[in-house]
Amino acid sequence: MTDTLIEKIIQTKNPVCVGLDTAFEYLPDAMRKNCTTLSDAAQAITEFNLRLIERLKDVIPSVKVQAAYYEMYGVPGMQAFSDTLQAARKAGLIVIADAKRNDIGATASCYSAAFLGETDVNGLKLNAFSSDFLTVNAYLGADGIEPFLKHCRQNNKGIFVLVKTSNPSSGQLQNRKFENGETLFETVADLVEEWGADTVGKYGYSRVGAVVGATHPNEASILRKRLKHTLFLIPGYGAQGGSADGLSVCFDGRGLGGIVNNSRGILCAYKSDAYKGLNYIDAAYAAVEDMQKDITSALHRAGKSL
Amino acid sequence: MTDTLIEKIIQTKNPVCVGLDTAFEYLPDAMRKNCTTLSDAAQAITEFNLRLIERLKDVIPSVKVQAAYYEMYGVPGMQAFSDTLQAARKAGLIVIADAKRNDIGATASCYSAAFLGETDVNGLKLNAFSSDFLTVNAYLGADGIEPFLKHCRQNNKGIFVLVKTSNPSSGQLQNRKFENGETLFETVADLVEEWGADTVGKYGYSRVGAVVGATHPNEASILRKRLKHTLFLIPGYGAQGGSADGLSVCFDGRGLGGIVNNSRGILCAYKSDAYKGLNYIDAAYAAVEDMQKDITSALHRAGKSL
Repeated sequence: MTDTLIEKIIQTKNPVCVGLDTAFEYLPDAMRKNCTTLSDAAQAITEFNLRLIERLKDVIPSVKVQAAYYEMYGVPGMQAFSDTLQAARKAGLIVIADAKRNDIGATASCYSAAFLGETDVNGLKLNAFSSDFLTVNAYLGADGIEPFLKHCRQNNKGIFVLVKTSNPSSGQLQNRKFENGETLFETVADLVEEWGADTVGKYGYSRVGAVVGATHPNEASILRKRLKHTLFLIPGYGAQGGSADGLSVCFDGRGLGGIVNNSRGILCAYKSDAYKGLNYIDAAYAAVEDMQKDITSALHRAGKSL
Repeated sequence: MTDTLIEKIIQTKNPVCVGLDTAFEYLPDAMRKNCTTLSDAAQAITEFNLRLIERLKDVIPSVKVQAAYYEMYGVPGMQAFSDTLQAARKAGLIVIADAKRNDIGATASCYSAAFLGETDVNGLKLNAFSSDFLTVNAYLGADGIEPFLKHCRQNNKGIFVLVKTSNPSSGQLQNRKFENGETLFETVADLVEEWGADTVGKYGYSRVGAVVGATHPNEASILRKRLKHTLFLIPGYGAQGGSADGLSVCFDGRGLGGIVNNSRGILCAYKSDAYKGLNYIDAAYAAVEDMQKDITSALHRAGKSL
């Protein structure tokens, strides 16, 4: 699936992932009015997402769907989550479920079945929340990750492991140094490279990627040198403060090796002065184009043209 | 909510939490036959849980509902999750949603709204998945935890932060020592104590608890000495190998300070030789009684009678 994602990045010449972190308050007034239940809100969110997917499907490789923004609308929210994942896959996009799942082995197997595998009901193999990639948290160590690796191998799926996150306090634990002089994030990074070693594809990247925040270019630079076969999912561009020049260190000489997420900057583009007068769909389209230019220009400046 | 949980433990003289990690294959054949869809499976699981809750509600303080075992049945599974949480709360049990959620601040706020707070839809405050406690993962540091703390304070809710997990590879990261000689799990533990400092209740425990595996009594002993105001949620008893004598170190002199989870050992008691001939409900009831005796005896031996 990592190969397929990279192929779509090359084909669209666009390493941009649209983050469907679709909070109800992001929706235009007309779509929100008259909503009084979680179900109303979830349906409005689904409609917002599906129109956006339809408009953007040929110019982006991928969407990242953030589970928290659906879970907060309860069971109807999870229906919206499922419908969004399905619509994006049907539109030919690579779908990253951003759920940061983690648990002990037996339980991690259930999460993996839910997102990357199948659920067995009396011998029937059924799909719960079908996605191409899932984000995971490695605090529990290898046996909490192995069930996901199994589906990565068997079903040609992928995971992105949290390594260096984009938030301000990410360093509180992640940047602390162990006795051997290496930080927690470097230690997790080495595990990521190891876990992916047997699934390196034709572009040199494995099915086990890393989440590396655009807001921390120094750490990103260290990680890119250290992780030769690891694709980076890069959050933190735009609203969180990450710049295109800063995150260009995540890419290799071919302009590959990373996919840059933007959520609010695209979903809420229609609210910003830059896209005044455009409806949310056209504003999002224009924001994707601008972000693509911004990143590909930065890559070009760094001698890494896609 | 920590006070309420401790009161219920004292009232039932039972520090046992029943883990509703209800996989479809745990159900008796009669409840499983004719199920061919995720929805069928989810309904059967709900029925299994609700009968169990009805039978156990007066002898246990709490249930822990593991999200992964519901997510694997898709949207109908999340309905079963929601119905189980609601039924347990209605039965007067303290409900721990075991979902190990984690994300950057803005997104953690959504998770917190989903489980511990309310979701705003056009000014209406609605409940998504209502629980009393939520398990969380601290890899992202303080700003990923703060949104949960806010609801702990405002809504009298609680969280359990993963500190030392029960799985075999938990030491891979958690037991590594930082330059100051302290392990990752000790470092997270100190943050937990700090995060809870302003919510210590009448029994001396705060609203910010810690997950501490019964399978690691040495680490549990270190943690109990270190964390004077932290309630422990203790998984790993029974099927995973944790013993009552081992985990007694988690409790204070009053026999308080911990709640011990058991999932498979109770849900699947009817399949074991010890409870042969009993239906699943009576077997679970007997298994809870036996577990209570096992733990209270161990506490007694350690001079910590409840």
